[in-house]
Amino acid sequence: MRELVFVGLGLNDEKGISLNGLEEAKNADQVFMELYTSLLPDFSMKNLEALIHKQIQVLSRRNLEEENGKLILEAAETGKAVFLVPGDPFIATTHLTLRIEAAKRKIPTRIIHGASIISAIISVSGLHNYKFGKTVTIPLKENFSETPYNVIAQNKQLRLHTLCLLDLKTDEKRYLTIKDALTMLGEIEDKKKLNIASETALAVGLARAGSKTPTLKADFVGELQKFDFGEPPMTLIFPGQLHFMEAEALIAFADAPTKLRSMTT
Amino acid sequence: MRELVFVGLGLNDEKGISLNGLEEAKNADQVFMELYTSLLPDFSMKNLEALIHKQIQVLSRRNLEEENGKLILEAAETGKAVFLVPGDPFIATTHLTLRIEAAKRKIPTRIIHGASIISAIISVSGLHNYKFGKTVTIPLKENFSETPYNVIAQNKQLRLHTLCLLDLKTDEKRYLTIKDALTMLGEIEDKKKLNIASETALAVGLARAGSKTPTLKADFVGELQKFDFGEPPMTLIFPGQLHFMEAEALIAFADAPTKLRSMTT
Repeated sequence: MRELVFVGLGLNDEKGISLNGLEEAKNADQVFMELYTSLLPDFSMKNLEALIHKQIQVLSRRNLEEENGKLILEAAETGKAVFLVPGDPFIATTHLTLRIEAAKRKIPTRIIHGASIISAIISVSGLHNYKFGKTVTIPLKENFSETPYNVIAQNKQLRLHTLCLLDLKTDEKRYLTIKDALTMLGEIEDKKKLNIASETALAVGLARAGSKTPTLKADFVGELQKFDFGEPPMTLIFPGQLHFMEAEALIAFADAPTKLRSMTT
Repeated sequence: MRELVFVGLGLNDEKGISLNGLEEAKNADQVFMELYTSLLPDFSMKNLEALIHKQIQVLSRRNLEEENGKLILEAAETGKAVFLVPGDPFIATTHLTLRIEAAKRKIPTRIIHGASIISAIISVSGLHNYKFGKTVTIPLKENFSETPYNVIAQNKQLRLHTLCLLDLKTDEKRYLTIKDALTMLGEIEDKKKLNIASETALAVGLARAGSKTPTLKADFVGELQKFDFGEPPMTLIFPGQLHFMEAEALIAFADAPTKLRSMTT
């Protein structure tokens, strides 16, 4: 059967995949994967191949973006191709082009969802889903701009939280850290002085969501910059106005200063 | 070991759970579940119990909210308790109270994430993650207010998309439909006339995310109201300003009118 199934790998390791996803991979004629849009720190290719009883072909950014996913499309033209993607398959917009190209070739596509950092961090932090504004990615130093600062400022004005995804270049093993993100935002703060990323602004950092050792810490930026989050991947939230239940959650699970209780609505 | 592990069931059926989640449930002393915060249309209790080799105790809203999760907390005081929750465990804020109560009793808690509608609908629709504003729940008729309309309007002014979760009362088998949501928003539209939910405003509906038969349709509200989405659960998006790639995705996967191409940036 001609088919292309996008399967979300979820978070952290090969066991983040759902039973539905596993079944699709087992029944595929060819299985592909990419590991460059996100970091799955405890992922084992050997274990996943053992689980699905077949070999997995790893595709590079070049295979997918410059060659437009030619290898996958060719496999899906003649049989069932499964494409494994970290997280939920289209949260990074990268693979949308591939899905549209498949549609143009009349190849049926389906999606098996996986856990994504964008819902996981809401769950882990205890912050309320409906209080998040626009999400932003904080780029690595060479691509840094004022955009992330401005997005946080706009959300804050609306009393909303901002989820900041931290950029990475897996091929170069470079992952933006919370510390470096705070430093870069601090430089914009020095110019704009909106108290977005000043030493006394509140922020919440999360490292290794979905692993056995996730690290969640809420504190004022000055303190957070000294905190050791350990290994990547990392994510950052700038809270807007806190509900008292959110403050309690941050105190209970993110070791936040109890002073937060006086900052709630 | 005293422990409370919250495990996300993901979407649609018992196979939405991750391998990590399944392992936790297999190793638990007691397994609990709730099925009232979301609808998993193809879920089979019998199949899930067979997968984890033990009985699952289903908890009602009363057990969890009025009795403050007493049954689960008692189980976690003496052994390993696993609590299965549709989607990702804390996207509905309901269970945060339970986690905070566990922390107060010094019961260690962990989270195994699952796929959530809030990331799934972004993946399915092809709309870009970083272009969503604040999320809103559209309540059932008896609780309807102007809030959802105002949230959509505020997001639209910022050129952002709005994800609208549609409320449900699983115990009464009542699920807000896209048609009814559009009708209620239309009544506010008649008063406010901001072209948010008028017949010519664009909207995207999704039914049964994560199932074998998800239905995604983008169209102008007047047309969308006549469209048959089939069975619940349903979700609705009001797009803000569309990027041309988003328009192409809606045309390819949501059978959107090709007129969208002239409405992009």
